[in-house]
Amino acid sequence: MNAFARLSLNQATVQSWSVQEAVDGCARAGIGWIGLWREQVAEQGLHESARLARDAGVRVSSLCRGGFFPAATAAQRRARIDDTARALDEAAALHTDVLVLVCGGLPEGSRDVDGARQMIEDGVAALVPHAAERGVRLAIEPLHPMFAADRSLITTLTLANDVVERVASPHVGVVIDVYHVWWDPAVYAQIARAAPYTLGFHVNDWIVPLPDLLRGRGMMGDGCIDVRRLREAVDRAGYAGPIEVEIFNDVIWSTPGDDVVAHMKDRFVSEVL
Amino acid sequence: MNAFARLSLNQATVQSWSVQEAVDGCARAGIGWIGLWREQVAEQGLHESARLARDAGVRVSSLCRGGFFPAATAAQRRARIDDTARALDEAAALHTDVLVLVCGGLPEGSRDVDGARQMIEDGVAALVPHAAERGVRLAIEPLHPMFAADRSLITTLTLANDVVERVASPHVGVVIDVYHVWWDPAVYAQIARAAPYTLGFHVNDWIVPLPDLLRGRGMMGDGCIDVRRLREAVDRAGYAGPIEVEIFNDVIWSTPGDDVVAHMKDRFVSEVL
Repeated sequence: MNAFARLSLNQATVQSWSVQEAVDGCARAGIGWIGLWREQVAEQGLHESARLARDAGVRVSSLCRGGFFPAATAAQRRARIDDTARALDEAAALHTDVLVLVCGGLPEGSRDVDGARQMIEDGVAALVPHAAERGVRLAIEPLHPMFAADRSLITTLTLANDVVERVASPHVGVVIDVYHVWWDPAVYAQIARAAPYTLGFHVNDWIVPLPDLLRGRGMMGDGCIDVRRLREAVDRAGYAGPIEVEIFNDVIWSTPGDDVVAHMKDRFVSEVL
Repeated sequence: MNAFARLSLNQATVQSWSVQEAVDGCARAGIGWIGLWREQVAEQGLHESARLARDAGVRVSSLCRGGFFPAATAAQRRARIDDTARALDEAAALHTDVLVLVCGGLPEGSRDVDGARQMIEDGVAALVPHAAERGVRLAIEPLHPMFAADRSLITTLTLANDVVERVASPHVGVVIDVYHVWWDPAVYAQIARAAPYTLGFHVNDWIVPLPDLLRGRGMMGDGCIDVRRLREAVDRAGYAGPIEVEIFNDVIWSTPGDDVVAHMKDRFVSEVL
């Protein structure tokens, strides 16, 4: 059994690599999965990206990202939904069936948390027919509450699960990132609840003290998250898919990509498996 | 009816003021309450601080802070409890019956969230007899989850309420700060639940984008929190005590204290009442 069979490099971890470089880097390191981002895919070209991954024998575990549903006007909300529909098309072209959703925070100037959460749910529901048509699933990612205002009002796995169960489509589920959920007293119960619709699992770490909200995540083992316990809980719930390493960190971003990948493989064995 | 009858200046909002200056500033501005911090009280002298407040006709709404219960060794945990017992003595000397608890994060090097939460509950429970003797109540403050690792693993009002109800003493309750709880989908239900033991309410705002985790809070009205809706919910639950303005912010800290207090009064009327 290959220890790295489930390991996936989320492209955000090696910010300097193009899709081609990232796919080649995975192939060199014997990593069979990659998580891609739309911006880098657009730079490389959508179909070229799909071809590069296929030729290298690297499968796309997920595409980041759609969402950001709340907006001040109906036209803006429609534009966000349309953009996420295009992301579903791109995911299908890349042969991944998981599109990660960062659902969005408050519309500018608004304080209406409940209203914005309703816009999120409406946006997800509106995309279900298109997701079904493309054979791609919408993976709601709960984000840490420090991103509530500007990135996602889906601040807990509980809330993500609530939305999934109300929308009630086989094309909607959750992706669980340890960085966003580790602090939540309900996390283990909610991981069990999410068993039927867990579409992805992301690992990294929470460094103490946190160097930066956005670019201060750590490599697994460098922080205080019990990553293995969370991985075991997700596995016990029945998730057997890829495990993406997604780290936004200025220090890691200034390290050569091959070194990051080698370090990531070591830590995957010592901290995750 | 005096619009400012419930307004309290938490001393942290005007970092440059000593206890004497803060008490005098409150008196000048017609503010009848002040929240004090142990460090500044120690600098001024405990009994001198009590005398200054009494002579100025300013009552102490709360003392910050005890807690930080989790630690690697039993001796360290004992020391934290002993320190919080001294804080109870100080609160009594200052004629306030509320000691705010920042409960503490993970012991250094630990990833055991459940174990640390148990240490918190054990610490609170251990202090109940001393709190009863002093006539001071222990007010558990849930902190924003971004402080989970290093400041408090009591990351939600739900969790604070759980601890209060398990410890089940009239000398233990919660203090609710809008900055820490506004993002929580359960917050309104948990405010109602906390009705019998809500011991304080703190207001400020969440600026978008957040300038700094620790020193980036905003004046009410400068951010995205619906402060009034939260105040109404806390009032509806029956809380009628002081409302502390507690703002850690580098810009506000470099503004003359009297100007901060005047601005705070304006915003208290326009954003809170």
